[in-house]
Amino acid sequence: MPTRVLTGITTTGTPHLGNYVGAIRPAIAASREAGVESFFFLADYHALIKCEDPARIERSRREIAATWLAAGLDPARVVFYRQSDVPEIPELSWLLTCVTGKGQMNRAHAYKAALDANVAAGEDADAGITMGLYSYPILMAADILLFGAQRVPVGRDQVQHIEMARDVAARFNHLFGAGRELLVLPEAAVDDEVATLPGLDGRKMSKSYDNTVPLFEGGPEALRAAVARIVTDSRGPGEPKPTEDVALVTLFDAFATPPERADFRAALQAGLAWGEAKARLVAQIEAQVGPMRARYAELMARPDELEAVLQAGATKARALAAPLMATLRQAVGLRAMVAAAAPAAAAAAAKAALPVFKQYRESDGRFRFKLVAADGQQVLLISEGFDEGREAGAWVKRLKTEGAAALPGAPLTLGEGMDTARVAAALQALVDAAAAEAADKLKP
Amino acid sequence: MPTRVLTGITTTGTPHLGNYVGAIRPAIAASREAGVESFFFLADYHALIKCEDPARIERSRREIAATWLAAGLDPARVVFYRQSDVPEIPELSWLLTCVTGKGQMNRAHAYKAALDANVAAGEDADAGITMGLYSYPILMAADILLFGAQRVPVGRDQVQHIEMARDVAARFNHLFGAGRELLVLPEAAVDDEVATLPGLDGRKMSKSYDNTVPLFEGGPEALRAAVARIVTDSRGPGEPKPTEDVALVTLFDAFATPPERADFRAALQAGLAWGEAKARLVAQIEAQVGPMRARYAELMARPDELEAVLQAGATKARALAAPLMATLRQAVGLRAMVAAAAPAAAAAAAKAALPVFKQYRESDGRFRFKLVAADGQQVLLISEGFDEGREAGAWVKRLKTEGAAALPGAPLTLGEGMDTARVAAALQALVDAAAAEAADKLKP
Repeated sequence: MPTRVLTGITTTGTPHLGNYVGAIRPAIAASREAGVESFFFLADYHALIKCEDPARIERSRREIAATWLAAGLDPARVVFYRQSDVPEIPELSWLLTCVTGKGQMNRAHAYKAALDANVAAGEDADAGITMGLYSYPILMAADILLFGAQRVPVGRDQVQHIEMARDVAARFNHLFGAGRELLVLPEAAVDDEVATLPGLDGRKMSKSYDNTVPLFEGGPEALRAAVARIVTDSRGPGEPKPTEDVALVTLFDAFATPPERADFRAALQAGLAWGEAKARLVAQIEAQVGPMRARYAELMARPDELEAVLQAGATKARALAAPLMATLRQAVGLRAMVAAAAPAAAAAAAKAALPVFKQYRESDGRFRFKLVAADGQQVLLISEGFDEGREAGAWVKRLKTEGAAALPGAPLTLGEGMDTARVAAALQALVDAAAAEAADKLKP
Repeated sequence: MPTRVLTGITTTGTPHLGNYVGAIRPAIAASREAGVESFFFLADYHALIKCEDPARIERSRREIAATWLAAGLDPARVVFYRQSDVPEIPELSWLLTCVTGKGQMNRAHAYKAALDANVAAGEDADAGITMGLYSYPILMAADILLFGAQRVPVGRDQVQHIEMARDVAARFNHLFGAGRELLVLPEAAVDDEVATLPGLDGRKMSKSYDNTVPLFEGGPEALRAAVARIVTDSRGPGEPKPTEDVALVTLFDAFATPPERADFRAALQAGLAWGEAKARLVAQIEAQVGPMRARYAELMARPDELEAVLQAGATKARALAAPLMATLRQAVGLRAMVAAAAPAAAAAAAKAALPVFKQYRESDGRFRFKLVAADGQQVLLISEGFDEGREAGAWVKRLKTEGAAALPGAPLTLGEGMDTARVAAALQALVDAAAAEAADKLKP
């Protein structure tokens, strides 16, 4: 089974080159690895905590969806959806709210930081703090647990939230699981080697430093204008240039192959003018970003196409979320009212729909068995002849308990027109039914 | 417009006679009043706060749904639904969470009581307090605001929660309403004259005193057995009995007409034995409760019938909730991504579907106009001939702004095969379109 990896994308602001190199590009690369089932979602319910400007919420969701798709996120390969299109998320959030200790929320970093700031300013401890800020770790737990995510790539500051999600999942399982792991316990995946890109002034590229290079917005002109503002030293053309701890070089590296990096360094050491170097940097970035920007512009011009992609993603997400939610509702007692006779009738109906083993003895005196489909007609498997009836019985028992795992090397042939997949599915149905029956017997 | 009244029903425990007289009977009576649109819901999300026993949640929901229906709640007349069948409730709860100040939750009675108990016991202030207990006033606000309830009948201890719902609604309207009252501000309706029934020992009937008389469960035998345990004094048969502040008499009163009450008092004063009096009380209660109990037993035996009633109620509830939720999502910025051209195209399409006035001059030299249907073929109205073109123009203007109100006495005849209703509808479409256009022009 593939590992489920879940990534939430905040939907405030417009992505810049630092976001692309540090977050978007590596996440998309990771989503293409084998053995991984990736979930990406636009965290727009979270955006409401910080942002009371509806137009900004709307614009940001659109820009960010277009950015990720343009940067190569493949919605056919991953599950890419908008949080607010999955009503199971707020519902699970409430179920988790009921089993989350208030003390745990008191210890959440974001809340504590706001509290400390209030206290330092001589304000009331909770002044200006909304319940959204206070309780969002529960919503985040719902985001993660609803999809059974095993791995959540996060920055170090978010590890605490993943631990909270683990705790609440464990508590839920303990209270309502009756020994089952209803909710999968997620693990934080912290990558300490995250590429951070320097901004125009050499500090980390960040909106709060106002030193960013735009990714798509503003076109190549905006990219060129930003690069022109990168701070360099006063060495003139022909003078050898430094290449260590130089923002221009680090930015170039982020878009270059090792030979290209070596060439660029050699040129600088040989006296390449800063202006020339900047032109080369623009060309280097543009080679990767340019085609994406064209796709970005297309998507921004066709929001209905974005909407269709996100709706398709929501459908995929809900197809996974709804069955889990049904199980959780059942577990906590939010059950449909059904006649007492119904479960027994349903069980009988399910049993009737199972394939059946039939043992018999042929005119040659040998013991055989067949696996006959639920319709009583189609033959799925036929055994060879055995000298003893109990040999046939032993094989039937093995097939009933081990399923398709017992097939290789078994003295069996497929029925006419049958394929192994179909036989394997029929055997699995028998194995499942036996397991369900055994579980029922354990009930009080 | 009728007044919307919303009543939440907690789904823990089994209703007793005190619940029936104090809450169920008066609420059902109120739901039958004219000018009222009643909403009743099983508050099962709230039940999860206090109850970690799924079987008890399940049983209680069933008993309580059956009790209210058996007691006469008419699901055709009211909206009767289960909270957990309306996913718009937890979703609205999150939107409200983002605009609720944490300080407000700190002041909620239920939380403060739990906090004070912890402090008094020398425990950590938030020990054992879940986020469910802490934040349920927000869920309660969502329950109320989602249905635009104007009046919420509550006990005095719940008034604070209704005020919180008002506050959060006002804040939401202020932030996102752009002058509109997106959420209706509810009012608490406190009935200080609530009938409280004495229990077996004369104190208020309450599960926590273990002095209750069962309502339906246990059949008439359980009722008789409970009444037999009502505490009386030691006066023997023939001795005059007191009739003031006597639990037996108060219980009788709750099920009797004024003449029956007077008869009962007279009999006691004349020396009716306590045993006899208890038999009369049982008969008096049973006359009202007996037929309901039979219906209750039927419903309990047919949970699928209960489920169908609740599902139909959820459909009614969601038909109201979904359009409001769509408006609220739009208001906060959780909007579908649509092409910018689309609204203009839609407007053009709508305009194309409108009927059109055509003015012309005939061979007799007189000015006339026609109203032609959107298909360009069918004539809806034809005017008489006017001497001046501006007379015709003035009538066209009046019909466009006043609609069908301008028809009586106007110099017009209906087109062939037309009726007034159809013409009135066509004129109304023009009036609406003009109003929409005027509103659009006011937008920034």
